Amino acid sequence: MSDYFSIRWMDGVVRMLDQRLLPNEVVYRDFIQYSEVTSAIREMVIRGAPAIGVAAGFGLALVAYHSKASHTSQLVNEIKIAANELRKSRPTAMNLFWAIQRINLIVEKANEVQLAQLRQRVIAEAKKIADEDEQMTLKIAQNGQQFIPDHANLIHHCNTGALATAGIGTALGVIRVAHESGKKIHVYVDETRPRLQGARLTSWELKQLGIPHTVIVDGASGYFMKQTRIDACLVGCDRIASNGDVANKIGTYNLALVANVHKVPFYSVGPMTTVDLSIISGKDILIEERPAREITHLGDTQITPDDVKIANPSFDVTPAIYITAIITDKGVAYPPYEKSLGMLMNG
Amino acid sequence: MSDYFSIRWMDGVVRMLDQRLLPNEVVYRDFIQYSEVTSAIREMVIRGAPAIGVAAGFGLALVAYHSKASHTSQLVNEIKIAANELRKSRPTAMNLFWAIQRINLIVEKANEVQLAQLRQRVIAEAKKIADEDEQMTLKIAQNGQQFIPDHANLIHHCNTGALATAGIGTALGVIRVAHESGKKIHVYVDETRPRLQGARLTSWELKQLGIPHTVIVDGASGYFMKQTRIDACLVGCDRIASNGDVANKIGTYNLALVANVHKVPFYSVGPMTTVDLSIISGKDILIEERPAREITHLGDTQITPDDVKIANPSFDVTPAIYITAIITDKGVAYPPYEKSLGMLMNG
Repeated sequence: MSDYFSIRWMDGVVRMLDQRLLPNEVVYRDFIQYSEVTSAIREMVIRGAPAIGVAAGFGLALVAYHSKASHTSQLVNEIKIAANELRKSRPTAMNLFWAIQRINLIVEKANEVQLAQLRQRVIAEAKKIADEDEQMTLKIAQNGQQFIPDHANLIHHCNTGALATAGIGTALGVIRVAHESGKKIHVYVDETRPRLQGARLTSWELKQLGIPHTVIVDGASGYFMKQTRIDACLVGCDRIASNGDVANKIGTYNLALVANVHKVPFYSVGPMTTVDLSIISGKDILIEERPAREITHLGDTQITPDDVKIANPSFDVTPAIYITAIITDKGVAYPPYEKSLGMLMNG
Repeated sequence: MSDYFSIRWMDGVVRMLDQRLLPNEVVYRDFIQYSEVTSAIREMVIRGAPAIGVAAGFGLALVAYHSKASHTSQLVNEIKIAANELRKSRPTAMNLFWAIQRINLIVEKANEVQLAQLRQRVIAEAKKIADEDEQMTLKIAQNGQQFIPDHANLIHHCNTGALATAGIGTALGVIRVAHESGKKIHVYVDETRPRLQGARLTSWELKQLGIPHTVIVDGASGYFMKQTRIDACLVGCDRIASNGDVANKIGTYNLALVANVHKVPFYSVGPMTTVDLSIISGKDILIEERPAREITHLGDTQITPDDVKIANPSFDVTPAIYITAIITDKGVAYPPYEKSLGMLMNG
């Protein structure tokens, strides 16, 4: 592991790296209330689907740890209220709902347990979610190695690294392990408007890891595919429908279409927990609309005229036909995804 | 005409709207030396291929107006030196070289004319370039009307308005005349990284003109084509090869590919002076690489880590096969462009 991390449980305290301040400042923040965690998710102190799931689990662990409840039923109630708040923090990432659901399963079986035992079980489950997340990223990285040739020239969108998970990352974890195994790698880093997770976060992580990279604007991916040999595009995923349609950071769909024209393999990388088999296709994935200010301002600098109308969908859906393979911790899924995702899920 | 303008000749003074300060401040700057005009082009006080051509002409007119030469040959020499400097200000826009060439033709026939006459001819030619540019934009707008249905929902990249020309603009001129003729129009405005000409300039112009619009990040065009009915994409052009390949602001190629997948008509709009028949295909168009700071910073705010590697090509080339039609002042060219552009050129 590198010496930075997105989120950690420290005995009743949740410590998060404030990703809004990167790369200029490395500031960790400590939270002891779930409502602070809710705000941190909403305001993107932490982001990235797997990391959001871990954060939600730790948010509920904070309730269990600090609760002044004197009866089990009282704590159950407090956790349910907190879970409802946390669920509203970001609407698209599958992992958020999945992590809350795991804690819920503990809570729903709580009738017969002692208060102290419930506290301990909730905290243990949240820690387990984080531990599993770390293990998951290592498995993903392993499963992805076959797609990264030596001297690979890659395009990466948004941030999918250690900052987006509790481990080494998803797509960026694949790239990191390829680099650490001795392959020569160069990454074109999509800056990823509007929040610039590529320019700010991915570039910062790649610098810490010593992986050669070049930051480009999102609109330049086609230019570089035409000018240079690009071996693959790697992106993360926020929710995967059962047909293989993938919701991911806005700009992913454009990148996939451009890669398709240039016959550049396009890999979606994430944990199986991102797959939502209850959703038939991408059409049914709820897309979060984020505040206009992400586009009208950078920091305190106003870019646009006053009162301009903005549309700021935070994610888009890439249809399965444009995805060469989905790399997960449970294995690699190939089209047709209805079949391959179902097999991985059950396998 | 609206009450703002990109550039104007005012009897020995070139007045330009400083587009770097828009939309927050409306500041006009006066120049009396050609070297100030050279810097203004390089630093993008003024930008947009047609406006750059007009600026170059006025830059040489300033030399003619203010020269202390006592012989024709001396002025000829001064103008040639200035022309060489101006040519180096931006490398991609065809109009720059074309405007300088027009003044050169006057200068090369100057041997037998009086000094005063040469001064007057150069100034007159520069004014003529600007006047013709204005007329050109009106003709383009006329020729483009057939492609804009009532209730049109359009996507526009970069800035191609009055700010980019000495008239009403090219692609944005088409949109403006459609609006003024009573058609209901809505424009999705690509913010256009890295310099945000869409968010800053196009949005500002559309606001002045009362044309409904929504600013989006460049990576969201596919999202909106999938969500909504988009009737057409309209973009400008900086240089057109004889086969119809078009160099335009970075991000244009990605937009064209995305439009192609969605069967959205894609129009390249500009004056015939942008066509360079000496260039066979887009491969031979020189693409300007601009400073890293355009991507690493916004204003004084640093986005990326220190010393990050940046690639910042200012333009890309869209192959002719992705362009539905090229709308010019001389008429509309359709594929195959080798034939149609040649016919318009000679017609």
